[in-house]
Amino acid sequence: MTTARSQTWFDHIKRVERSVWFQSFIISIIIIAALTVGAKTYPLPYSAELVINYLDSFITVFFLLEISLRFITHENKARFFKDPWNIFDTVIVIGSLVPISNTDMVLVARLLRVLRVLRLVSIIPDLRMLITALMKAIPKMGYIALLMFILFYIFGAAGSIFFGHVNNDLWGDIAISMLTLFRIATFEDWTDVMYETMEVYPLSWVYYVIFIFLTAFIFLNMMVGVVLEVMSRETMIEEQQSQEDHHEALVNQIAQLQEQVQALSDKLDRK
Amino acid sequence: MTTARSQTWFDHIKRVERSVWFQSFIISIIIIAALTVGAKTYPLPYSAELVINYLDSFITVFFLLEISLRFITHENKARFFKDPWNIFDTVIVIGSLVPISNTDMVLVARLLRVLRVLRLVSIIPDLRMLITALMKAIPKMGYIALLMFILFYIFGAAGSIFFGHVNNDLWGDIAISMLTLFRIATFEDWTDVMYETMEVYPLSWVYYVIFIFLTAFIFLNMMVGVVLEVMSRETMIEEQQSQEDHHEALVNQIAQLQEQVQALSDKLDRK
Amino acid sequence: MTTARSQTWFDHIKRVERSVWFQSFIISIIIIAALTVGAKTYPLPYSAELVINYLDSFITVFFLLEISLRFITHENKARFFKDPWNIFDTVIVIGSLVPISNTDMVLVARLLRVLRVLRLVSIIPDLRMLITALMKAIPKMGYIALLMFILFYIFGAAGSIFFGHVNNDLWGDIAISMLTLFRIATFEDWTDVMYETMEVYPLSWVYYVIFIFLTAFIFLNMMVGVVLEVMSRETMIEEQQSQEDHHEALVNQIAQLQEQVQALSDKLDRK
Amino acid sequence: MTTARSQTWFDHIKRVERSVWFQSFIISIIIIAALTVGAKTYPLPYSAELVINYLDSFITVFFLLEISLRFITHENKARFFKDPWNIFDTVIVIGSLVPISNTDMVLVARLLRVLRVLRLVSIIPDLRMLITALMKAIPKMGYIALLMFILFYIFGAAGSIFFGHVNNDLWGDIAISMLTLFRIATFEDWTDVMYETMEVYPLSWVYYVIFIFLTAFIFLNMMVGVVLEVMSRETMIEEQQSQEDHHEALVNQIAQLQEQVQALSDKLDRK
Repeated sequence: MTTARSQTWFDHIKRVERSVWFQSFIISIIIIAALTVGAKTYPLPYSAELVINYLDSFITVFFLLEISLRFITHENKARFFKDPWNIFDTVIVIGSLVPISNTDMVLVARLLRVLRVLRLVSIIPDLRMLITALMKAIPKMGYIALLMFILFYIFGAAGSIFFGHVNNDLWGDIAISMLTLFRIATFEDWTDVMYETMEVYPLSWVYYVIFIFLTAFIFLNMMVGVVLEVMSRETMIEEQQSQEDHHEALVNQIAQLQEQVQALSDKLDRK
Repeated sequence: MTTARSQTWFDHIKRVERSVWFQSFIISIIIIAALTVGAKTYPLPYSAELVINYLDSFITVFFLLEISLRFITHENKARFFKDPWNIFDTVIVIGSLVPISNTDMVLVARLLRVLRVLRLVSIIPDLRMLITALMKAIPKMGYIALLMFILFYIFGAAGSIFFGHVNNDLWGDIAISMLTLFRIATFEDWTDVMYETMEVYPLSWVYYVIFIFLTAFIFLNMMVGVVLEVMSRETMIEEQQSQEDHHEALVNQIAQLQEQVQALSDKLDRK
Repeated sequence: MTTARSQTWFDHIKRVERSVWFQSFIISIIIIAALTVGAKTYPLPYSAELVINYLDSFITVFFLLEISLRFITHENKARFFKDPWNIFDTVIVIGSLVPISNTDMVLVARLLRVLRVLRLVSIIPDLRMLITALMKAIPKMGYIALLMFILFYIFGAAGSIFFGHVNNDLWGDIAISMLTLFRIATFEDWTDVMYETMEVYPLSWVYYVIFIFLTAFIFLNMMVGVVLEVMSRETMIEEQQSQEDHHEALVNQIAQLQEQVQALSDKLDRK
Repeated sequence: MTTARSQTWFDHIKRVERSVWFQSFIISIIIIAALTVGAKTYPLPYSAELVINYLDSFITVFFLLEISLRFITHENKARFFKDPWNIFDTVIVIGSLVPISNTDMVLVARLLRVLRVLRLVSIIPDLRMLITALMKAIPKMGYIALLMFILFYIFGAAGSIFFGHVNNDLWGDIAISMLTLFRIATFEDWTDVMYETMEVYPLSWVYYVIFIFLTAFIFLNMMVGVVLEVMSRETMIEEQQSQEDHHEALVNQIAQLQEQVQALSDKLDRK
């Protein structure tokens, strides 16, 4: 009897949880959480600071309750953490439990509270779908990213070997060199870097021009390629479905015709 | 009798209004309006200034008359403002009624007069179609823009928390931080910003590299994706139409054949 | 008899002119012409200067002869100038007749000689095709370019009205403002421009952010759109051709079948 | 007997060579080689330096042995160097034989050792495929690259002629001018270059705007075009294959029907 009663109670909670107004309520809480985080970057009077701290405690407790409720009312506890979005939510909620009054970790605690804005992504279905779609493009990029890294590593090592004594701040070791190359890849004041090394090695412009060509070429190929791939696969599937449907319709119609002819032949036999 | 007469008069006006030479005349007036706005940014002798002021008054009155005529001769007054282009024109014309001699609002009045150039868009049909096409791409971007905003908000808050004391002009509060991030997203002297924070937090380059990767990745996906979507949908429709036509032709031909066979079968029965 | 003889002579010239070795010879002359132009930008000893000047005279005369021969041996003199490439070549050749010793026009004369490099484009068939293909994309851009110009004009006028007194060198009049906007559209030190006006109008960042969004959005749409359009139209035509072929084959086969059935029916009638 | 024995020995080596663990072992060696190259760019204690030098000798010998083994166990010695990847590996291995203690060539020797990282590309099949795919796009670009070069050459010569006396460091001769133009094409502080020449030639902004438009236009056409070409060709082939299959199925089915009708006709004849 008690189980049945708690069952009803569970169902009731679940219904509330999935209702539009409850979802909207959570979204509002997340937005308020985001606003408090933003507000804290401004100089505030003590009273406002106090209100925000109370709000923060309330939000933390609310999120903790909400995720607990969702876990408790989940049919299959073991499968709850199979869904990456549930893990995502749980990590964010637990992360924001770090007390903000702890002076040692105040910056980290504030940063973790900022991440609560990300819960917007997990709660709005369209954003969730968008992220899933973007994620699909990532594995395709794995090897291109590796290729890019090899390119940066080789040019980084070469840059460090040749230009290290020209400007130690830019080419001191391979890590700094790779950061400098990233800067060059974004075209950010790259000529300043080049003119400096050209004073020692007048031909060093070759290094920069080749590097820019290679990165731009590979990068563009990568980006356009991946996006096109994902897109065209989808349109292809749709198109082939429509083609398949048309084809099947024709095959069926002709098969029907064949039966008619067969019937005719049988009729002729019977005569 | 009077109604019939005014009817004829109306028809006459409408015919004038839709004629090519009247449209060309309005386009010339808009271009003259644009030129006076441009001319006013140069230092001018008093006489030229005077001529331009008279011209401006004439243009204002002319546009007011033109839109009034269009409204009066419109069959259905209620539906006149259903067309967004009519609202667009009306707002621009009313906006330019702000007197330019009013010293308090002289800048606003001049700005509103600049917007009259936009009437070119509403009067040239090809530009109108172009804008309509561009508009179609916007709803698709809604959620990606939201995602982008969340990204900027989180990085803005984090930047403000960590780098606020390094450079108050760039990371002072979340709004300034987001503007700084927009600057970084356009690669504009972003290394200056980075080198400054790296002196305090040597690992802060991670923040910049991740941010640049994420924005570039999402932005490119967004842009290429949306454009491709709009394009491929159109070519898809055309293609599927042609496929549909072919399919129908085959279906009809086979149906005809089936009837022939049926007729044959009937003939055999009758024998 | 004389006509016949000159005819043979003409044919001979034409055959020479179209031969691979003659084409290669002209290409070498063009490349030599390009090299002399390049060499002249370096400080040269007097003797080398002299050699180059003799070479230049020879090249000028050679090109003049070549184009004259092509004109003389052309079947239809009137249609010779219908081909845009012939006009292109003639203009370049005539342009380089400006004597380089004329001290007043020495720069213009040298510039006109530089343009002789462009004859490479008209003589190499693949480059000609490439240019023709690029040209095809231009009309499509006409209206987008107009839209872009309107955008620059409005923002230029607005910028000049509001920021003219902040920095006269950047926002002095509408022409300078539009150049500044072009600079902003390429992201070139645009924050310097922005920070300057933000000291007077703290909200002026809105102006820059909106402008950058609009130009980037329209520009990307334009570029990707046009390229895709040209591409997809070509692949579409190929694809539809193959579809059309398949369809026709099926229609013919079914028509043949219909005739068979018809013959059967006739046979039955005759029995 | 000896041959058979060495044969078995060969087969054994080959089997080892192609085994997954041996491939993984080589990959680890390459990564260690890459790390030593990277480590050397940091200031190291003498002992670490010594260890790295020993490691380097070991890696050099190992790579030499590995490539020798691969050559020896190759069925057809003549065809070994037909495979570009084998040439690639051999050149890299031989290149790294330059002794690093040679003080004259120490930089070159270190650079050649950096290139050993590239062996990762030849040993990981997916990276090999990626490079092959990127290579396919290159011939397509040949003529566009030539067109680009002509554009740079003409603008370089013109820039050198007109702006040479304004700033000798940027426009001194045609080679420097072309480097400056490459800088302008990447939008890198191009307005600084422009404002300088505009002081002498106020209209010189035309030169820059036209150049930027042309390069951006051709470059974008080139990149997007080539990538799309490669992509769409592949999807086209797949799609046409599926279309072809459908078509064939229909043709066969109708042919079967035709035979049925023919059989019917024969039966009628026999009656």
